[in-house]
Amino acid sequence: MAKTFPDRQRTLGSLLRLPYQALQSAVYGALAERGFDDIRAAHSAVFRHIDADGTRLTVLAERAGMTKQSMAYLVDALAQAGYLTAAADPQDGRARRVLLTRRGDQAMTALLELSADFEHRLAERLGTARMARLRTLLEALADVVEIAPDGANAT
Amino acid sequence: MAKTFPDRQRTLGSLLRLPYQALQSAVYGALAERGFDDIRAAHSAVFRHIDADGTRLTVLAERAGMTKQSMAYLVDALAQAGYLTAAADPQDGRARRVLLTRRGDQAMTALLELSADFEHRLAERLGTARMARLRTLLEALADVVEIAPDGANAT
Repeated sequence: MAKTFPDRQRTLGSLLRLPYQALQSAVYGALAERGFDDIRAAHSAVFRHIDADGTRLTVLAERAGMTKQSMAYLVDALAQAGYLTAAADPQDGRARRVLLTRRGDQAMTALLELSADFEHRLAERLGTARMARLRTLLEALADVVEIAPDGANAT
Repeated sequence: MAKTFPDRQRTLGSLLRLPYQALQSAVYGALAERGFDDIRAAHSAVFRHIDADGTRLTVLAERAGMTKQSMAYLVDALAQAGYLTAAADPQDGRARRVLLTRRGDQAMTALLELSADFEHRLAERLGTARMARLRTLLEALADVVEIAPDGANAT
């Protein structure tokens, strides 16, 4: 039992996860300060995957890699808080799409701004050249992850 | 509403999150194939933060940035599956520590091996020099994230 544990080693996983969590925490913290204090980081699974003209619940769940039930839980909470609404699907009248309301659209705009702000502040500290190299390498990593064995696809 | 949405842009957040999710999915998928098929990626919040000589539930929750209730839910599931046990805290007889069982220790060993394997395969595809540069830049990013404004700490 004298094993060292993942977060104390710097595994690739922790090197990816920790800045991502910091970004999420900063962005959703600042979102609350802008008056969207009923939106949690968990709701990002909805905002990240919803299309401008609405998306079916099953498609949202698929894109987020979640069960339909878990996605429905997030969608219901955001609908009750006034960020989402439902409408008939134009391609299939029996199906329903989830849509951003005007308030949901405002939250989305704020999320995109705050995320860009945070990235900009990090780039200032890291140096723009290093941030550009980091982005290039992360894009290359995304390409090799997509062809990695063992069903390692993100979607 | 003609906005583009975060995952279709390559935000820094999505560039960090997507390979992390791929890694988690590969590692926990392979863990199931090794016979640990009752361990889910969500349980990583426990394995990642538990000390070799056990950790209090409140400390686990703090380290993972979760509520005590959410952490208790994960810990209970892993205890029922035989991976964790509880013992009195040597520093405070009234408090209890969560400990890995022998089976939990085997799961941890497998997790560390699988994570290192996955990283090794990615390094082969990316090239070891590029993987080394990526790691160096991610470590630099971790340093600037820690001093970022807006309460952006990961812990």
